[in-house]
Amino acid sequence: MTYEDDSLMLHTDLYQVNMAETYWRDGKAGQKAVFELYFRKLPFDNGYAVFAGLDRVLDFIENFGFTESDLTYLKEIGGYEDDFLDYLRNLKFTGTIKSMKEGEVVFANEPLMRIEAPLAEAQLIETPLLNIVNYQTLIATKAARIKYVVGNSTVMEFGTRRAHEMDAAIWGTRAAYIGGFSATSNVRAGKLFGIPIAGTHAHAMVQAYRDDYIAFKKYASTHKDCVFLVDTYDTLRSGVPNAIKVAKEFGDKINFKGIRLDSGDMAYLSKKARKMLDDAGFTEAEIIASNDLDEYTILNLQAQGAVIDIYGIGTKLITAYDQAALGGVYKLVAIEEEDKMIDTIKISANPEKVTTPGSKRVYRIVNNETGYSEGDYIALEQEDPQSQERLKMFHPVHTYISKFVTNFTAVNLHEDVVVNGEIKYRSPSLEAIQNYTTQNMNLLWEEYKRTMKPEEYPVDLSEACWENKMKLIRDIKQKVKEKVE
Amino acid sequence: MTYEDDSLMLHTDLYQVNMAETYWRDGKAGQKAVFELYFRKLPFDNGYAVFAGLDRVLDFIENFGFTESDLTYLKEIGGYEDDFLDYLRNLKFTGTIKSMKEGEVVFANEPLMRIEAPLAEAQLIETPLLNIVNYQTLIATKAARIKYVVGNSTVMEFGTRRAHEMDAAIWGTRAAYIGGFSATSNVRAGKLFGIPIAGTHAHAMVQAYRDDYIAFKKYASTHKDCVFLVDTYDTLRSGVPNAIKVAKEFGDKINFKGIRLDSGDMAYLSKKARKMLDDAGFTEAEIIASNDLDEYTILNLQAQGAVIDIYGIGTKLITAYDQAALGGVYKLVAIEEEDKMIDTIKISANPEKVTTPGSKRVYRIVNNETGYSEGDYIALEQEDPQSQERLKMFHPVHTYISKFVTNFTAVNLHEDVVVNGEIKYRSPSLEAIQNYTTQNMNLLWEEYKRTMKPEEYPVDLSEACWENKMKLIRDIKQKVKEKVE
Repeated sequence: MTYEDDSLMLHTDLYQVNMAETYWRDGKAGQKAVFELYFRKLPFDNGYAVFAGLDRVLDFIENFGFTESDLTYLKEIGGYEDDFLDYLRNLKFTGTIKSMKEGEVVFANEPLMRIEAPLAEAQLIETPLLNIVNYQTLIATKAARIKYVVGNSTVMEFGTRRAHEMDAAIWGTRAAYIGGFSATSNVRAGKLFGIPIAGTHAHAMVQAYRDDYIAFKKYASTHKDCVFLVDTYDTLRSGVPNAIKVAKEFGDKINFKGIRLDSGDMAYLSKKARKMLDDAGFTEAEIIASNDLDEYTILNLQAQGAVIDIYGIGTKLITAYDQAALGGVYKLVAIEEEDKMIDTIKISANPEKVTTPGSKRVYRIVNNETGYSEGDYIALEQEDPQSQERLKMFHPVHTYISKFVTNFTAVNLHEDVVVNGEIKYRSPSLEAIQNYTTQNMNLLWEEYKRTMKPEEYPVDLSEACWENKMKLIRDIKQKVKEKVE
Repeated sequence: MTYEDDSLMLHTDLYQVNMAETYWRDGKAGQKAVFELYFRKLPFDNGYAVFAGLDRVLDFIENFGFTESDLTYLKEIGGYEDDFLDYLRNLKFTGTIKSMKEGEVVFANEPLMRIEAPLAEAQLIETPLLNIVNYQTLIATKAARIKYVVGNSTVMEFGTRRAHEMDAAIWGTRAAYIGGFSATSNVRAGKLFGIPIAGTHAHAMVQAYRDDYIAFKKYASTHKDCVFLVDTYDTLRSGVPNAIKVAKEFGDKINFKGIRLDSGDMAYLSKKARKMLDDAGFTEAEIIASNDLDEYTILNLQAQGAVIDIYGIGTKLITAYDQAALGGVYKLVAIEEEDKMIDTIKISANPEKVTTPGSKRVYRIVNNETGYSEGDYIALEQEDPQSQERLKMFHPVHTYISKFVTNFTAVNLHEDVVVNGEIKYRSPSLEAIQNYTTQNMNLLWEEYKRTMKPEEYPVDLSEACWENKMKLIRDIKQKVKEKVE
């Protein structure tokens, strides 16, 4: 590497820099712009998503700024003149960011973050914000699905070796914790985030001693807590019997926590192993399973009566294997023009890609009687849904679907996390965030939470918001038409 | 974060540390062990894979070593005593690593890397090596598939916003370059790796000016090279005509490189846009397409006669969307015992999980007459396939499939990259690695390279290697049986 430092400021798409240049030369870089970050479709056909990524976003914002080596590089690749580079050199983030909190249960087309900043600044942070939020929200959501299926069983994150490089391993396991996981095998994630870490031994240790019995004994001689991996040679004929033998021999000298199964027919093996453990008097010893598991295989194992106490989840969680990307986008919804904010729209031949103009807020409409949420309500900044006695909610595409809600609390989901460039929000402990997820999940009827074909949770636009969108579409259509004629 | 430094040494699974403890207390930590890193199945049902990740692995090895804060953390979580922590404090990597070179075309069940090191050291590096190689090889392979389909067209990497956090974005784009991509949108990857960077403007700029024509004009006033994004409002009625209008107005003052389509019916729009550009005299202007593209959609677009010169590939490449993980593993194949190396095996109820024992080499058997490869030949360390006049190659599962090869060159694919802890290999330039990939691809018949249902490339075991494996399976079976009886 030619450049000494590796600041994250250039972790952005080149077009952001090029647009910043155009804006700056055109005197437009300082114009106030409002961008919203949202995704258009829930991942995994799930009924909800769990927001994560804010902590790292704030860290990025705090360190916003080009380093000298960044500027040297930009100069070297050519095309940028010194006056523009000087502008970049002095650039600070001065905007305001409203955001959902980590652990918030969120839905499609809701602004998860709203960035109000000078146009160039808002543009330069787009790519890293999406990079962070898309991945972390995806994994927190996947984790919540898995946790929902296992119920009171424990789930641990074991995926580092299959994660998409190192950042994914650690930030993914943090997101998994937010979604309900209890521990990780990644020691660095433990050190960085305080997540409980878990793990005992691998097949290699049994191979190194070339014998289950000797290997387990050696491990038991050097560790108090023991989980023995029993499938290196033959699960039921060698692994489990030798685990039991060692557990008996060591008695109180170790804490025999259980065995781990990592291959073969998990339903069959877990039942057989459970019986062997019980017959030997180890009724408290737990069975840990790990082998390409996810919510689908777990449901299947449960249906077969598998006896598994703890699930170790690797590949399928950390890569969100069945849908490896969340399609979050970052769209301009308003721009300052002659000291007034003007709403903006993007039209598209793909209808779901048409944006909803204007600065918006998201309210969760909680029914005061049931304690459950009636849906989310997206309103323009100046609206106050709580002031209405009967709130009309309607589907943003199929507008004939509508309902009136009374006796509700409209909870504003946007927190001021950055105000005029200053970080105003510090993440609570990860444990508190995990609890917040649980608390949020409790607002949802079960119908929205099941992993297959959940009901569609209502995310509605206010009438003002809807009318505004329709008006802008008409205006653009008219303008294009006039130009063509 | 409580700890100041974030060394990568703890970027490992906890069980590696626990096993190291057992080995150390048992006097076994320094025993020489041989591990091999390989994957069991080619990704994407592809006919080959492209190896990547070595550069970062060597960087990791060079920085091997626990920091004080790592040790403080391990002490705090409890369970480790000072004598063991002292051992870790002084631990250096002293092993030898043989590895394929980046850009090597590789196949299932071939040792991509062979690690010969004191048992504890070899174990501690397992997780990061797999984390790095699994992801980077996956993406280099996906990129090679896409490059194969586009032929002489250019492919650029645009996926940062959908990558799995930041490391994946930059190391993924480096891997994509190795696989045949020409450029990236990620500026940081340009700075770190010298990859050409590309990008002009986004929809937001058109929205900010609320007019295609004004936006393109502003961009043209501030940049020499211009690609205009034409689908913000209406591709054929507003975007393309305004791009042409601005290109005409600016004439030689800009280098009108083309237009970018990012939504809608790409086949239809590209043909229409091509005609409009040609009719206006801009026959050299190129059409860039980007919208959830991958090798499948590109093949489809080609079949529809789409006129696309450059493809910008995001999500589907950087996340390897259709198969988001390569299942690389790291298995013990031999261990020192009383000053002798003993081969080891892992048996499994899943037959593909049974390991092949012994230190092995991989040779590419190149036919001297045709210049094409006849297959790969996995042999035990001490064997020399080149010394044989007629080389017998046979399928490692369906052993009746066999052939004899004469007049061949057996190319040893393993390079000594680390010797007794010292880095002996420095990566060539990325461009040289990309060329190496192309050169390797040229050794393969087309039948192995097509993206759908490719022929199976022969990866064969030497007879000695096969016999050795069968013998160890018999031995273990016998041993388990004796214990049961």
